[in-house]
Amino acid sequence: MTRPSPDAAAFTALQAKLLALLGPKGVISEPAELAPYLLESRGLHRGSTPFMALPASVEEVAETLRLAAEAGIAVVPQGGNTGRVSGALVLPEHGAILVNLKRLKQIRAVDPIDNAMTVEAGCILAEVQAAAAQADRLFPLSLGAEGSCQIGGNLASNAGGIHVLRYGNIRDLVLGLEVVLPNGEIWDGLSTLRKDNTGYDLKQLFIGAEGTLGIITAATLKLFPRPRESVSLFIALADLEAGLELLSAAQDATGGGLCACELIPGIALDFTLRHIPGSIDPLEKRYDWHLLMEATSGQAGSGLREALESVLEEAFTRGRVPDAAIAASEAQAKAFWHLREALVEAQIREGASIKHDISVPVSKVPSFLRQAAEAVEALQPGIRPYPFGHLGDGNIHYNLSQPPGMAPEAFLARAPEIQSKVHDIAVALGGSISAEHGIGLVKLAENARFKSAVEQDLMRRVKDAIDPAGLMNPGKLVSKL
Amino acid sequence: MTRPSPDAAAFTALQAKLLALLGPKGVISEPAELAPYLLESRGLHRGSTPFMALPASVEEVAETLRLAAEAGIAVVPQGGNTGRVSGALVLPEHGAILVNLKRLKQIRAVDPIDNAMTVEAGCILAEVQAAAAQADRLFPLSLGAEGSCQIGGNLASNAGGIHVLRYGNIRDLVLGLEVVLPNGEIWDGLSTLRKDNTGYDLKQLFIGAEGTLGIITAATLKLFPRPRESVSLFIALADLEAGLELLSAAQDATGGGLCACELIPGIALDFTLRHIPGSIDPLEKRYDWHLLMEATSGQAGSGLREALESVLEEAFTRGRVPDAAIAASEAQAKAFWHLREALVEAQIREGASIKHDISVPVSKVPSFLRQAAEAVEALQPGIRPYPFGHLGDGNIHYNLSQPPGMAPEAFLARAPEIQSKVHDIAVALGGSISAEHGIGLVKLAENARFKSAVEQDLMRRVKDAIDPAGLMNPGKLVSKL
Repeated sequence: MTRPSPDAAAFTALQAKLLALLGPKGVISEPAELAPYLLESRGLHRGSTPFMALPASVEEVAETLRLAAEAGIAVVPQGGNTGRVSGALVLPEHGAILVNLKRLKQIRAVDPIDNAMTVEAGCILAEVQAAAAQADRLFPLSLGAEGSCQIGGNLASNAGGIHVLRYGNIRDLVLGLEVVLPNGEIWDGLSTLRKDNTGYDLKQLFIGAEGTLGIITAATLKLFPRPRESVSLFIALADLEAGLELLSAAQDATGGGLCACELIPGIALDFTLRHIPGSIDPLEKRYDWHLLMEATSGQAGSGLREALESVLEEAFTRGRVPDAAIAASEAQAKAFWHLREALVEAQIREGASIKHDISVPVSKVPSFLRQAAEAVEALQPGIRPYPFGHLGDGNIHYNLSQPPGMAPEAFLARAPEIQSKVHDIAVALGGSISAEHGIGLVKLAENARFKSAVEQDLMRRVKDAIDPAGLMNPGKLVSKL
Repeated sequence: MTRPSPDAAAFTALQAKLLALLGPKGVISEPAELAPYLLESRGLHRGSTPFMALPASVEEVAETLRLAAEAGIAVVPQGGNTGRVSGALVLPEHGAILVNLKRLKQIRAVDPIDNAMTVEAGCILAEVQAAAAQADRLFPLSLGAEGSCQIGGNLASNAGGIHVLRYGNIRDLVLGLEVVLPNGEIWDGLSTLRKDNTGYDLKQLFIGAEGTLGIITAATLKLFPRPRESVSLFIALADLEAGLELLSAAQDATGGGLCACELIPGIALDFTLRHIPGSIDPLEKRYDWHLLMEATSGQAGSGLREALESVLEEAFTRGRVPDAAIAASEAQAKAFWHLREALVEAQIREGASIKHDISVPVSKVPSFLRQAAEAVEALQPGIRPYPFGHLGDGNIHYNLSQPPGMAPEAFLARAPEIQSKVHDIAVALGGSISAEHGIGLVKLAENARFKSAVEQDLMRRVKDAIDPAGLMNPGKLVSKL
């Protein structure tokens, strides 16, 4: 990236051109109006830029990028700004404007026969789910921010969430893409085809590229049959290995019927029961580890519940599951999931925390949790591991609460050393330092520590081939590679 | 591609170096021994090259490519040589050697807990399926050549087959790859992780690239629960639309339980019953269109059969399905599938044929078949459309048998014009000219006719970034783009 820094006059000239192109709704420069788009989602960092463009169609996005490229001004694409790694943050040194996609919010087509829908980048994930449901289909991506994140951001960051076990990450849910390239050209790769073997799979390059190769303006998404039956189970585990056994046995008995398998540690239940009003432990005693499982079937009367009851009985008999509850109603299932969703908020009430988004092979989750617990206790005695998340796909949010009574700032100062150690352990087990949140700005240095030189070089070559001027989301993902 | 043509001395020098590296089993230059590797799978074209290298490990592949690059000699990778588009054919003008991967045949790991297996490029697909089954898991890729095609070739050509409807193409079945790059570097992208968001998805670039970006030496593949129940149905259709209705209704009733949904026209059944000994029509009367469906469930006692019986009854009542047979035994199911597999051979007995591998959105299959039938009859009166294949994913092998009595050569001479027209119709309906066979040499010109300039440019940029010297499978896939 040897791009010269654009001067203030260049920004002013571009702003005038974009105002003429997009109209007054299409350019925001008023500091108060701009402020929420400049603040990173956890409120940790605040960016700065002269203005933000809000094109309302793919043609307007294309013309915006063409004009920006002409001016030598870089572009930071932004969706719902709910990301966890500052991927949509624009800093002064980026010499960039924000381009927000929220006005591209058309659902262009829903086709239940082809099991496909085409949506624009600015559609809220929950709206996409609802449009699919209205056509009696399922769009399975589901995550905490679904009420405000946008599908374009989900695509750019390859969003994961709680249903990856069954349906994969969003990259597995895409049939086609429409992308505006850094020079303002439009690549129309939209398609409802299930089979098309006529060249390189370009769409997967843009998915998960965090806006460093172009701006995704629309996507054709896969739809699935809607569940007709659903069973939620809250299960106490004899130990961590019992979690793996249960996962395998339940998948076996239901033919891969699990759509979620979440790990909930005793400490997270303790915090939640203490801090979140209305929380109820589904079981009578306290246990160190639990699984929250959900299985679904698209076939009514499939015997799903009976199959899972047999699995539990067998595990109970062998002493691997001391207790368990099967939701008897939709309300009870919701109460189980309320506990899972309250974990994050509950941890905040217990003071400062240091977070991770690691993954390891599913079989290695118990080893990881034991090694990491030992290592972080050695680095910071009294630290309270609070690991929760997606056991079914090996993605654990390895959060750590401060020792009681320690000054939060002193604890947070330990973050780099602790994170580095946790990442070492995950990678040594064949794992990843970022399972679903991406790299953005926050994990650049750590990523560079682990990526092989060969892979860094390949990524750099792809970046230079598609964005030779380095105008797309500078300073992110591939910046230090 | 401005690579200078290497001279004979360069080939001789490289052959000597590779003989020293790989030993006598690692280099074949004897014409009789070389002959089968030079013949395209349908016997239509014969290539030529001074010799073929057969490295036996990833390190040997790396050193082979490094030495070839040093000599400025290009490389045509070859697996089982079962492809349909001459992708592994080496012609004199390519200035290349063959590198065959058959000696890389280790199954490195099978892990049922992680639902993953790591296999080398030279493993036969059927061996991979068997190794998965031995661990009580399913590797779902299945296609006609499975007894001789190699997994490396399946990956390079993004193989499809009969289970795409449920499990996707092979590109959907891969967790990680090991690739030797054109300069001889090894990219170790093997991984059993289900979630890893730390950079561009490089593996999808190499899958389906037909060896134009590097050589895939190993892959980590996804495994699935094995079916515990299976139901095969042979269904006569009132018309083509009834096929779509049945597909939707069956998917609905089984929650996406179909793993195959094949279209079989009356003419294909006629030819098969006429020419293939032991063939039996499962139904009493002749119909114009049939579906061969297979549904499976990984859950025993799931009520799959009953669900499908209800679908058939309902369609029968409405006059959409005049007759149908549900296999009462595994032997009967095999007899249904024997018919499907015999279609290709049966057509050969009826004279010359012109073939296509198109796909359209599933909803457009009836329109495509009607438009194409009309168009080809206009171009060649008496032509006999013989369309069969994967209705469930929109991929129809639109084969055409010669008019009875016409000279085969005269019929085949019409191929370019007819193929061009059929492709026009498919693409106008949002379809593809190559659903699962790829581009290779055979479809280069047609592909260039339909790919947008933007997409051709993107592919070219990616090719130049990863293979700047143009040494990998020259003259294929991206050659004319």
